Amino acid sequence: MPARRPTIADVARHAGVSKGLVSYALNDRPGVSSDSRRRILAAADDLGWTPSLRGRSLSTGRSFACGLVVGRSPDVIAADPFFHSLIAGLEDVFAASGQVLVLAVATPGREEAETYRGLADDRRVDGVVITDLRAGDERIALVERLGLRAVTLGRPDVVSPFPSVSVDDGAGIRGAVAHLAGLGHRRIAHVAGPAAMLHGQRRADAFAAAAEAAGLQPVMVETDFSAAEGAEATRRLLAAPDRPTAIVYSNDHMALAGLGVAQRLGLRVPEDLSITGFDDTELGRVIHPSLTSVATDARAWGSAAARALVAALEGAPAEHVALAEPTLIVRESTGPAPSNPPRG
Amino acid sequence: MPARRPTIADVARHAGVSKGLVSYALNDRPGVSSDSRRRILAAADDLGWTPSLRGRSLSTGRSFACGLVVGRSPDVIAADPFFHSLIAGLEDVFAASGQVLVLAVATPGREEAETYRGLADDRRVDGVVITDLRAGDERIALVERLGLRAVTLGRPDVVSPFPSVSVDDGAGIRGAVAHLAGLGHRRIAHVAGPAAMLHGQRRADAFAAAAEAAGLQPVMVETDFSAAEGAEATRRLLAAPDRPTAIVYSNDHMALAGLGVAQRLGLRVPEDLSITGFDDTELGRVIHPSLTSVATDARAWGSAAARALVAALEGAPAEHVALAEPTLIVRESTGPAPSNPPRG
Repeated sequence: MPARRPTIADVARHAGVSKGLVSYALNDRPGVSSDSRRRILAAADDLGWTPSLRGRSLSTGRSFACGLVVGRSPDVIAADPFFHSLIAGLEDVFAASGQVLVLAVATPGREEAETYRGLADDRRVDGVVITDLRAGDERIALVERLGLRAVTLGRPDVVSPFPSVSVDDGAGIRGAVAHLAGLGHRRIAHVAGPAAMLHGQRRADAFAAAAEAAGLQPVMVETDFSAAEGAEATRRLLAAPDRPTAIVYSNDHMALAGLGVAQRLGLRVPEDLSITGFDDTELGRVIHPSLTSVATDARAWGSAAARALVAALEGAPAEHVALAEPTLIVRESTGPAPSNPPRG
Repeated sequence: MPARRPTIADVARHAGVSKGLVSYALNDRPGVSSDSRRRILAAADDLGWTPSLRGRSLSTGRSFACGLVVGRSPDVIAADPFFHSLIAGLEDVFAASGQVLVLAVATPGREEAETYRGLADDRRVDGVVITDLRAGDERIALVERLGLRAVTLGRPDVVSPFPSVSVDDGAGIRGAVAHLAGLGHRRIAHVAGPAAMLHGQRRADAFAAAAEAAGLQPVMVETDFSAAEGAEATRRLLAAPDRPTAIVYSNDHMALAGLGVAQRLGLRVPEDLSITGFDDTELGRVIHPSLTSVATDARAWGSAAARALVAALEGAPAEHVALAEPTLIVRESTGPAPSNPPRG
């Protein structure tokens, strides 16, 4: 026998009454004697009956599912542990509130707008989680037009009717620059994420502001967040005659790639070059030298976003939630600036 | 106006006929004059009408969704790029066939069996993709009992009514051992995944067989696949008086962690110690020294699994698909055995 969930018919059989009567009793409608109602509720309880999703969907018009459309290329996603922690955090809350998570990967050949439209038209989801916000992000208006609810990770730079949950990653970058300046570094470079992504740009802006505040000339190289581009940016920076003595990376994977490039060039980390990462990954902790990194809590971020979305689905007004500031975890990859830095 | 999909009512208005007539015409039923039918089909075409998911669901009893329940702890998943590539591969096929992917993370506090039951009872999904097969995996019988279709990644060691798609990862491990033995290594160790996972065990078995075939004494340490346990296993192996001159790791992340441990102990890779990984990650390619690794194609594996599942949903008999053998990509982390290896 399939291990299926008990139905109204099972409850009716167990209580010795009609299905119609069970439906009336379970929906708390009049016309059921108190004796029958008691017997029916006892039968439902005995069998472990719970309202079916289909029944709830029909009565509420909701699908009890939320979507996450990931717009990065699969290769970049695969290298980024942030997403898995985020998904685990979303699931912590969705599972508890009876939602499921529908995941869609919008690769270049699979249009993003079309993916959102499909989810909305087919009533696949009630709401979506929007990550990797872009400058002038057109997804906000699209999702609103499609009649979906949403939550954004980070505050968009366009008008948005949706709640948002953000982490001040600028504070993490400022902490890294202050740490390095305090160690005597005067030539600090930043290997940034894509300027078209708000969090990549926010980290780059924070870097520029912190460097200028410390009286330094900010040097920056933009990448797509991948280890390969992080390695290439490092090669370019270290080939310059006045190469930096410290590099602040916009994520751990690029920092680890940069570590490989430096070692390949015969530079010792941190004696000749200090480096910092962002995300505080497990790999950064076990590598040699272990990586100084900005620790954010992607799982907590996911949970907070899911809570905001579930609240929005229940009619709560859109609010902005700011999570705790990330902190710099100092390990072995940063040290005092070399006493005789290379000169141009 | 919401950018919604056109309905039968829209088509009726556009064609100047009743909704009932449109429904009859679009479902190819009799009782519609050829003139009306032509006008209705033209109107449907003009408006870009397509059958709704709800309509198809009602007529076929299917939800057009497939599930992936990930049973590892979020921390281990977050560190494993395999999953993201797998998901991208699943999506390549699901998106093209009109399915969505429902993702559930079964953490210790969220029971796995309960998660499958919820997906089945609520008709959330038509089928599931079962990964990380375990010895005597009880999920096979559970999923069958729940009335779901499924595909397994790898062949289960229990009777299964489901198609499976597998990669001979043993061939990859044999390739690594042959490569190292060819370089003169006589003390080769294996840092294995969990014995309770079939692929961890299969790699360990392949290692033991290949080592014995080469006349070597196989040394193995079991881990949970995490970088942290990979580092700990390496520390233990390198502390032994007759420490290995080469270590074959069951994934890249453990190999990178092991590289960090070796460097911390002042051992040069590959001069004092050769190491190999598994999965051929981007990070392994950019690190110094770059990592010799077994390359599997997780994305192709995901696509093949999705194709098998979609075929099963359409009634195809369960078949076993064997994908191309993985290959060893030789890079800088392996070299000739040291001429004076440490002695016990």
